[in-house]
Amino acid sequence: MRRPVLSIVHAVLACALLASAVHAETVATVASPNDVLTVEIDLHEGRVGYRVERFGEPVIETSALGFMLRGSGKLERNLALTDTATRSFDQTWEQPWGEDRHVRNHYNELRATLTETVAPRRTFDIVFRVYDDGIGFRYGFPEQAAADELIIDDELTEFALADPATAWWIPAGEWNRYEYLYNRTPLSEVTTAHTPMTVRTEDGLHIAFHEAALVDYAGMWLRRTDGRRFRAQLAPASEGWKVRRTLPFNTPWRTLQIADSAAALYESSDLILNLNEPNRLGDVSWFTPAKYVGIWWSLHLEDESWATGARHGATTANTKRYVDFAAEHGFRGVLVEGWNPGWDGQWFGNGYDFDFTRATPDFDIEALSAYAKSRGVHLIGHHETGCAVSHYEEQMADAFAMNQRLGIDVVKTGYVCDAGGIERRLPDGSITREWHDGQWNAGHHLRVLEAAAKHHVAINAHEPIKDTGLRRTYPNWVSREGARGMEYGAWGNPTNPPEHEANLVFTRMLSGPMDYTPGILSLQGRGQAIQTTIAKQLALYVVLYSPVQMAADLPENYARHMEAFQFIKDVPADWARTEVLNGEVGDYVTFARKDRNSADWYLGSITDEHGRVLQVPLSFLEPGRRYTAQVYRDGDGAHWQDAPFAFERESFEVTSADVLTLRLAAGGGQAVRFVAQ
Amino acid sequence: MRRPVLSIVHAVLACALLASAVHAETVATVASPNDVLTVEIDLHEGRVGYRVERFGEPVIETSALGFMLRGSGKLERNLALTDTATRSFDQTWEQPWGEDRHVRNHYNELRATLTETVAPRRTFDIVFRVYDDGIGFRYGFPEQAAADELIIDDELTEFALADPATAWWIPAGEWNRYEYLYNRTPLSEVTTAHTPMTVRTEDGLHIAFHEAALVDYAGMWLRRTDGRRFRAQLAPASEGWKVRRTLPFNTPWRTLQIADSAAALYESSDLILNLNEPNRLGDVSWFTPAKYVGIWWSLHLEDESWATGARHGATTANTKRYVDFAAEHGFRGVLVEGWNPGWDGQWFGNGYDFDFTRATPDFDIEALSAYAKSRGVHLIGHHETGCAVSHYEEQMADAFAMNQRLGIDVVKTGYVCDAGGIERRLPDGSITREWHDGQWNAGHHLRVLEAAAKHHVAINAHEPIKDTGLRRTYPNWVSREGARGMEYGAWGNPTNPPEHEANLVFTRMLSGPMDYTPGILSLQGRGQAIQTTIAKQLALYVVLYSPVQMAADLPENYARHMEAFQFIKDVPADWARTEVLNGEVGDYVTFARKDRNSADWYLGSITDEHGRVLQVPLSFLEPGRRYTAQVYRDGDGAHWQDAPFAFERESFEVTSADVLTLRLAAGGGQAVRFVAQ
Repeated sequence: MRRPVLSIVHAVLACALLASAVHAETVATVASPNDVLTVEIDLHEGRVGYRVERFGEPVIETSALGFMLRGSGKLERNLALTDTATRSFDQTWEQPWGEDRHVRNHYNELRATLTETVAPRRTFDIVFRVYDDGIGFRYGFPEQAAADELIIDDELTEFALADPATAWWIPAGEWNRYEYLYNRTPLSEVTTAHTPMTVRTEDGLHIAFHEAALVDYAGMWLRRTDGRRFRAQLAPASEGWKVRRTLPFNTPWRTLQIADSAAALYESSDLILNLNEPNRLGDVSWFTPAKYVGIWWSLHLEDESWATGARHGATTANTKRYVDFAAEHGFRGVLVEGWNPGWDGQWFGNGYDFDFTRATPDFDIEALSAYAKSRGVHLIGHHETGCAVSHYEEQMADAFAMNQRLGIDVVKTGYVCDAGGIERRLPDGSITREWHDGQWNAGHHLRVLEAAAKHHVAINAHEPIKDTGLRRTYPNWVSREGARGMEYGAWGNPTNPPEHEANLVFTRMLSGPMDYTPGILSLQGRGQAIQTTIAKQLALYVVLYSPVQMAADLPENYARHMEAFQFIKDVPADWARTEVLNGEVGDYVTFARKDRNSADWYLGSITDEHGRVLQVPLSFLEPGRRYTAQVYRDGDGAHWQDAPFAFERESFEVTSADVLTLRLAAGGGQAVRFVAQ
Repeated sequence: MRRPVLSIVHAVLACALLASAVHAETVATVASPNDVLTVEIDLHEGRVGYRVERFGEPVIETSALGFMLRGSGKLERNLALTDTATRSFDQTWEQPWGEDRHVRNHYNELRATLTETVAPRRTFDIVFRVYDDGIGFRYGFPEQAAADELIIDDELTEFALADPATAWWIPAGEWNRYEYLYNRTPLSEVTTAHTPMTVRTEDGLHIAFHEAALVDYAGMWLRRTDGRRFRAQLAPASEGWKVRRTLPFNTPWRTLQIADSAAALYESSDLILNLNEPNRLGDVSWFTPAKYVGIWWSLHLEDESWATGARHGATTANTKRYVDFAAEHGFRGVLVEGWNPGWDGQWFGNGYDFDFTRATPDFDIEALSAYAKSRGVHLIGHHETGCAVSHYEEQMADAFAMNQRLGIDVVKTGYVCDAGGIERRLPDGSITREWHDGQWNAGHHLRVLEAAAKHHVAINAHEPIKDTGLRRTYPNWVSREGARGMEYGAWGNPTNPPEHEANLVFTRMLSGPMDYTPGILSLQGRGQAIQTTIAKQLALYVVLYSPVQMAADLPENYARHMEAFQFIKDVPADWARTEVLNGEVGDYVTFARKDRNSADWYLGSITDEHGRVLQVPLSFLEPGRRYTAQVYRDGDGAHWQDAPFAFERESFEVTSADVLTLRLAAGGGQAVRFVAQ
């Protein structure tokens, strides 16, 4: 006999209404569909908290819930449980593009309504959705007599980990971006962290903290307050508060992914998507997942410049060369940065000269768009705001209209700021500064998406707000940066170390696609080497998911590595299914992904500064079918430092019954295409 | 182009013959077949050392080689390299019984001959065999003018780990057995450890230290001398030295298994077998791997006694009951402890009253053997020495002859000592005491095996010397104890904690089979609970390998758990193939094993005190074939402490393309039989 999955402790509900119990009482509880996770809501002297157990063992100790509100003080005591409701949900939905075509959304939900027992008798809901591999919860404020609007000075939500752990994290609240190398420290040494933050206990439990559906609210940082206890710290607004909202509203979902292995942790990321609202754009078949090339790496190498003049990259002739290269090798997109006026001065943090509807004189955008179209290629737009965000908002409708007319159906946006942050123009014309992940800029990104969608344009945001799964609701938000990408290989000091991508997979990538811009087969930045082997560059196309995926190196460099380049030409950017075959946070990972448009599978495996031998059963392949495995591997003696170009390509027949031995060099990787026969 | 796998640096050989280079010089090097591991032999001012690299990164920093010899002092300086030889070897051999029917032995070998440049100009070889997943090396002393015999006071072999690590280990040199709970500490907190000792670096490299082919030599302990540097410390002989040997001789192999995951570490254990000599017993088909029951758990519960009298377990009537139970449920063996005279006094550490050729008056061994035979059952012998080992040696030939006559083809031996250790009678009749793993007792075990083999008897040694893979050479050494077994669940203080078996798998079990005696479905010891769920007891039959595997609980207890007992009846004790599907040292592990005598597969998965959700692709199954999965799992809400009996059995069809989700309760497990259709 299964015990009931939802058991609300109605008996103590009346009890909780009496003001002062001495000990915390569990007033409601909900278990995941297969009884793996359990959430309990406690009341203790009118304060509400929650705790999480897994197989009967604590994962999150009792943690507070509540708010500091402007004017009316704390909303976290004198609370009584006045209503509960439960729900079981099991639905599989289809993604227009993504890592998996079908996503199952299977949870049990508990809604608990808390009401103050004294004036002003405010009321709010806490809603928990409990999956076997994670939890989401949010606050909901219904319409009520006690308030029309809330100004939130702080969210008091806590996350108190039961066990010591190692944490992988980047600092929050210091700089207006996410472009840090990941720290690996004891949990007790975390200060204030961005999400996703990933931790692993000594006993191998993996937990990732993040949020879903960050809409009209401030982004959440995690501030360690004591021991293993963290508190949600919201990104501030320029007005001094954190969030201002009219009732009714819901907060974003606070999410915990909980799994036994790094691989399972990655696969539990469906939670983020599931907690977002369904597609509100309707048919988005106008977006085509695809690879692209472009005038980009040459700029980071300083061989060419964004600014006009002798080294200007975005010229008609140079772009034509890239269009030809794209057409010849089957790339759909050609990104051109520096195509528009505004780059010639001190533009970053001061992008008021940018014009998004006009090209520079040496860039014949009309002729190039027509030429691209004749060759089956699309230009990719570039909207660097230099952080003059209101300035950009004023032009974006016209810009997207022009994009649509010219067949430019993907636009890369950019928000390169100085230390001050995002520039927002107030009604009086004065400029104030906002955090990238504050409430105002969260709203900006959605305004861009809505404006772009009207013209069937997809957005790939750089220096963006973090990904909270809004691509489910706005499927034209196809990718973003939001971490240290390949350009740090050109000029980073330090450059990205060999462990960087193995960190990213289990932290940043839990949140969604990243436009990492891999494929630098020359392995050479601006006077510094890129710290991977050549095979690892190929593997990144499978490992780091993005539906717009760049072949970032120069055409002339690809010409010198045509054997390896073949994999970049072959690998798709849209998948029917994804499996994480193995991995450890920060150490290594192997992905298998099935092409959405053929029966082929692709494998990508990467490691950090240590070589690895990994046995990979090919059980993901269709049983009974034969495949040709086209293997791109580190050559004997390969090493990211000494011998990064040692590289072998080989080919043999396999079936789902075979086991492949991957030998990854230090800093190396392996890519495989399995061609179905 | 592959580079040559073996490259001896002949150029520096001459150089090394010159006495005093200032820096260490690499004088010879050998790489593993796929270039994963490399061993370098260095000379530095006449001292010899070795180092190990993996994918070009150090695993073992330069570590000393050599000996302290009685009379002639250190053999470790003034050395010159006088010869080198290399060999590549690749052979697959068949085990008469085991975890895998076929074992591949694929290595590159380097033999380096070192000779003293000054008198007495002794010479010895160091032989390295380098596999992709480990290394074995040993010393060889050829016949030479300088010495006829060596008395070894100490072996100076070092193991200097390159990186910090966590170690799983039990202390050596304190007590005359291996029955400890495993420590998990930083490597830098290890004192002196038994082997196998397993370590995991921060970057996930797993290394296990052990030895192979411990013949006529003292067992090796690992003493930490400084930082991450260990030195071989040999178990002492009663004479005061460690080892005395006539030339020529080889030492045992010092082994390092090196892998990227806990699962791969387990699978690398073939190394231990491969470094042993082939079967010298010829046809051993007279040994039949099988399960057994017996008069054993009742003794540990103190419901019955080894001693004669009212509670004597080994009576004719009681044994007949066990024979009937065995026959009814398909068990081949019935172990009877306390069957012979010697148990009535203070026998442990004082086993001079034991008689191995005569039964107690209430145990009609002749009639019982005949009755067992009539029911298709074999009695299993029991030779508890009480540590009077010479006393036992005097009788063992007669005892094995009697065993053979009575169809008793497996004998469990025992060496329960007091603190003094193994009792050895000297020629003058006086008694001296030896370590379990000293040179003399290493020899004793082989004398038992040879005497037993003459009568087609297989040996299952308890309180034994550690396993160093000698079952390859003596395939009648079928199992042993050598760690804390299930009896600690009856009376252990503390009892075996939930993590115990997950520690054993990746430490003790790397060395070979263990007679753990699982299957206590009553989960009840002597006034204390066994710290597992019922499903975990079943899973142990697949997880802890032994070709003689006990169903250790009382018949009346099995009668109360017939649904779970069915798995114990079905599971075989001999395998065609073994795969470790996942695992972390001390946390959890999942095995799949194929029956050697059918097309069925079995799966066993266990966890420590934490529940786990594990996704297991069934890719080990034969593609295209349908199987009925008979699942024995933890029930909802199961927990080793609160609800250990929550248990479910279910059955469904699967193929190799399916993925099974295992949900293991805290302290739980899961067992599956896949019945081929």
